[in-house]
Amino acid sequence: MTDKLYNLLIKGSPILKKEFLPSISIDCVVFGFHDATLKVLLIKLLDATAWGLPGGYLKKEEDLAQGANRILKERTGANNIFLNQFKTYGKKNRSEDFFIDCPDDLWHKQRYISIAHYALIDYETVTPVIDEVSDACEWKKIDELPELMMDHQEIFNEALLQLRRDLNYKPVGLNLLPEKFTMPELQKLYEIILDKKLNRGNFYRKMTRYQILEKLDETRKGGAHKAPDLYKFNLENYNSALENGLQESW
Amino acid sequence: MTDKLYNLLIKGSPILKKEFLPSISIDCVVFGFHDATLKVLLIKLLDATAWGLPGGYLKKEEDLAQGANRILKERTGANNIFLNQFKTYGKKNRSEDFFIDCPDDLWHKQRYISIAHYALIDYETVTPVIDEVSDACEWKKIDELPELMMDHQEIFNEALLQLRRDLNYKPVGLNLLPEKFTMPELQKLYEIILDKKLNRGNFYRKMTRYQILEKLDETRKGGAHKAPDLYKFNLENYNSALENGLQESW
Repeated sequence: MTDKLYNLLIKGSPILKKEFLPSISIDCVVFGFHDATLKVLLIKLLDATAWGLPGGYLKKEEDLAQGANRILKERTGANNIFLNQFKTYGKKNRSEDFFIDCPDDLWHKQRYISIAHYALIDYETVTPVIDEVSDACEWKKIDELPELMMDHQEIFNEALLQLRRDLNYKPVGLNLLPEKFTMPELQKLYEIILDKKLNRGNFYRKMTRYQILEKLDETRKGGAHKAPDLYKFNLENYNSALENGLQESW
Repeated sequence: MTDKLYNLLIKGSPILKKEFLPSISIDCVVFGFHDATLKVLLIKLLDATAWGLPGGYLKKEEDLAQGANRILKERTGANNIFLNQFKTYGKKNRSEDFFIDCPDDLWHKQRYISIAHYALIDYETVTPVIDEVSDACEWKKIDELPELMMDHQEIFNEALLQLRRDLNYKPVGLNLLPEKFTMPELQKLYEIILDKKLNRGNFYRKMTRYQILEKLDETRKGGAHKAPDLYKFNLENYNSALENGLQESW
């Protein structure tokens, strides 16, 4: 760790100790969809080599869900993001070792568990924020990730696994697709997230059964083929499915 | 709170402070299957009216998973339980209010987040343990639950929901059924957990596809009808599916 980063961290420690709960951190795996690619938002601490997930600590005065939303907003400027808390990481030394050369009064050096969340957000509306202890905050393609610090690669891997599982219960696409889209475009998004081809007929039937789509009275103009139907999400049903889940498989 | 309970808690506070991490607790929703009913293990604090989930704190010297296993073992005597961590609860005042009349130096009065787990365990092998601050530790039918303290009813409800969702990814039955069982008996277990009837043919096909069952060269004797086939779990495939998940729905 450079002197510059250390001095910034040690300066902030008394304030952190006063305002935040000990031993608890929150990390966010923020997925965005851009150029037909799934990307994730990463930060890099000042002069560090490895990258990390954007995260922070939980304030004494806020609920856990409030804290996760605050942290995400501080990083991205994005509001009203549907955050999916998926796992808490609590191996001993997962965080302590990272600051092992620092004195014990550094707030960051204590043992932390991390309550991990993932979010799907609109790539276009995000303004990555570089705070004073970081020198980068950027989108990275999920299949070209740089080296990640601490257990952040494991957290990322399990977030992606959880996102794939959640496709069985939760709708996806709002914020990731334009307002009007075709069924093949929606299928393509699923295929990119799942990293596999899907059967067109099965996909159409499943999506229709979920009742989260509205077929529009317009088609996509242009192109040599028959103009494809356009759809948009039925917001009421979509949000209800987000909260209550799509129908189960059994 | 009675003086007796308070005195026990305040006496233990300095030791807890020394050995355990602040602000972090672990709660376990322990399901067992008995008399064709799903039951859950609950405890009652000394002279309390409401019941609660068995839980405890995380030691400074143990991983989160070790802590959860230790707590469960202390309560049930059961080893090698597959614990499913499913959500962390962190609303402000979820725990503080419970001890609001106590002085601030009581370890239990601080703000806690709770890392909730569920487990499916063999009813027959469990010896519920009543510790010195409790006066009961008992199995209760899930559809006849007593009043639960703090947010434990919410934690229980979400554990059951998660168990139902996990049936799509994780095998269930080992420890809950006898070693040899019939397909209708396994289906009955799923129906009780899901609280709905399943189609017999679909169930059979799905189970066969999972490859976690071994058909035995014996049938169940007795009864007026054709003797039903007996099965047992293929332990290698079952454990592999527990760790890696059954095939996904998409």
